[in-house]
Amino acid sequence: MPELAYVNGSIMPIEDAVVPIEDRGYQFGDAVYEVIASYKGKLFCFNEHFARLDRSMKELHFQEVQVDEIRKAAVDLFSMAKIERAAVYIQVSRGVSPRNHSFPSNVPVQVVLTVRKIVEKKPSVRETGIFAITVEDFRWGRCDIKTVQLLPNVLAKQSALDAGCYDAIFVTKEGIVREGTSSNLFILKGGVLKTHPITPNILSGITRLLVLDICREKQYPAEECFFDKSELYEADEVFLTGTITEVLPVVKIDGRTVGNGKVGPVARVLQEGLLGKLKSK
Amino acid sequence: MPELAYVNGSIMPIEDAVVPIEDRGYQFGDAVYEVIASYKGKLFCFNEHFARLDRSMKELHFQEVQVDEIRKAAVDLFSMAKIERAAVYIQVSRGVSPRNHSFPSNVPVQVVLTVRKIVEKKPSVRETGIFAITVEDFRWGRCDIKTVQLLPNVLAKQSALDAGCYDAIFVTKEGIVREGTSSNLFILKGGVLKTHPITPNILSGITRLLVLDICREKQYPAEECFFDKSELYEADEVFLTGTITEVLPVVKIDGRTVGNGKVGPVARVLQEGLLGKLKSK
Repeated sequence: MPELAYVNGSIMPIEDAVVPIEDRGYQFGDAVYEVIASYKGKLFCFNEHFARLDRSMKELHFQEVQVDEIRKAAVDLFSMAKIERAAVYIQVSRGVSPRNHSFPSNVPVQVVLTVRKIVEKKPSVRETGIFAITVEDFRWGRCDIKTVQLLPNVLAKQSALDAGCYDAIFVTKEGIVREGTSSNLFILKGGVLKTHPITPNILSGITRLLVLDICREKQYPAEECFFDKSELYEADEVFLTGTITEVLPVVKIDGRTVGNGKVGPVARVLQEGLLGKLKSK
Repeated sequence: MPELAYVNGSIMPIEDAVVPIEDRGYQFGDAVYEVIASYKGKLFCFNEHFARLDRSMKELHFQEVQVDEIRKAAVDLFSMAKIERAAVYIQVSRGVSPRNHSFPSNVPVQVVLTVRKIVEKKPSVRETGIFAITVEDFRWGRCDIKTVQLLPNVLAKQSALDAGCYDAIFVTKEGIVREGTSSNLFILKGGVLKTHPITPNILSGITRLLVLDICREKQYPAEECFFDKSELYEADEVFLTGTITEVLPVVKIDGRTVGNGKVGPVARVLQEGLLGKLKSK
């Protein structure tokens, strides 16, 4: 079960994989990515992740890309690695060219993949929920595109860890609650679920959509709407959603207990529902 | 006069220089940089650039870095390249570590340098000035740190080129004029110069400070203050300042002529004053 990397057609151990220093991903963060998780040897929501990758590249006006080739490379690398519970990381940059802000002409995109074993969270994390802090949303204005412009996410995540918490929740100066550093966010109040609508300020999470599907199936009222920090604090349940995150309950925010401080029943049902989807996707 | 790269102590042709795919500069844009220009074989404002690099690394809580070693590497590489009119590019990333948002522990920073010949602008560009567009400032909230979170700058620059212009000027939703995609911005109206004050939303440009120095020397009134797009449109002169940019007049913005549409006398004096500073720095 080796962890492997793929760089533009070549396969190698991850620690041997390199890119030119003038890859625009390195000098400008001019690159997009996806992370796909496998369960029991099967990649989950593969098509959905590739559809989003394709959209990200189009939004940034990357050169015409043969997405099918990248799909095939990802499937092949995953098969070769033989890791049942893996994260397949896919990064595509605009290409390699002497440093210049403007788009280079006729330069091929660079494709980098890795397959790594997923280090599972301690079971206690899912059983007791996590603590979070809020931080001002100081990210750029196109968080709907899944790019490597991730330094604000890095800094926010580290602030959370430094505060003895697990994650940070981005909230605008005006108080609008956005999402986590690598996940979307839902609140539940009076039986109604709310999550931020799709705008340029959040990522359209694949797990977010699956959770909304499950809400419909279970006839849980769920709204895609703005809500503010006071609603976050006063929610009965709060949880994060994401590919690796799945449905992760938040039981304390900025030192305030959420609901009764325990993982709520709705988050539990949605997490089970999500794992149930594994059979169908 | 070879163009050269330096990667963590090794020197090589730029096209042979590589970094690991799990360099955090590549996967998170978790890296800072500087560009230093040389004139007639002498690096300009070397200390000022290194002081800013040091500040950028401290703001991001990079591991303790021996800045003196990077300084020495930059000087040595520049000497070796023997390029009279060079751009020395310095990029320092937080290090190489399996992908995880949080800071890795005890991982050394990665240092990458290049020395390249500067391709001078056509003389006509400086003689007749440039055209610019305004774009909404959709960058992240810490533009005071010189990081590689540059994708919004890339997209804005490309929008300008696509519109037949040379550069884009970031303006907030509320109308506050920030700076160019890789330069600061000044306006002149009624004999008074204005430039955006130092806040987390703009880079504290070294050339910006030199230009403010020259204003003091010439007794030109200059204010560091906010001003809006209508003031930009109605200015007598507008110009960009930067290491490679120097003092670059803008004569048309969003299709509107600035002043009389010609390079103004104050921009000329400041450009000459800047070149005059070369002897002393």
